[in-house]
Amino acid sequence: MVRFIILWQDPPTDVEAFDRHYHEVHIPLANKMPGLRRYSLSRNLTPVRGEPPYRVAELEWDDVETMQRDMRSPAGRATAEDVEVLKHWSPGVQSMIYELEDVTPPNQT
Amino acid sequence: MVRFIILWQDPPTDVEAFDRHYHEVHIPLANKMPGLRRYSLSRNLTPVRGEPPYRVAELEWDDVETMQRDMRSPAGRATAEDVEVLKHWSPGVQSMIYELEDVTPPNQT
Repeated sequence: MVRFIILWQDPPTDVEAFDRHYHEVHIPLANKMPGLRRYSLSRNLTPVRGEPPYRVAELEWDDVETMQRDMRSPAGRATAEDVEVLKHWSPGVQSMIYELEDVTPPNQT
Repeated sequence: MVRFIILWQDPPTDVEAFDRHYHEVHIPLANKMPGLRRYSLSRNLTPVRGEPPYRVAELEWDDVETMQRDMRSPAGRATAEDVEVLKHWSPGVQSMIYELEDVTPPNQT
């Protein structure tokens, strides 16, 4: 499994406009990527240390190859371009891709 | 499911010391929390936008109540205190708790 995580670090200058665009344009665009396995948003975010982001978004694919194919697809490119629109309201976006190394002991899983 | 995510935003001043402490002390402490369902670390992290963190850690519990009970336990308090030790090498830690709202369309899951 590979995860693409996006932290919208800055509170939007116009929360209503940002959220409307996010839900009406951005989510439908991202969901056109055929290999996307799961797309989740943070809910009831509670800060522990440091400044909290406004929102965390997580997209999951089964493997790196499927993710890369989706990102190069028209839907993937349109989703990336749409981030530039969202950045007008929340410029401090931090995003990255990583795989997950499970460090839970076997008896707990 | 509730997620506790920790972004070690700063590259450690001493990577070897940080990683040794993280693996030999921090992970075993966290794994003593009885309700912890999964503990994962980022691997092959690739930055997309913004400055990448050094490491992302994710801890998962089944629900908020179990997480809160674990955090108040001796193991949970010891894990939180150990973050202060790790911060000597990587002070810019950003952490938060959130639930996940699935926005994948049903036909893709």
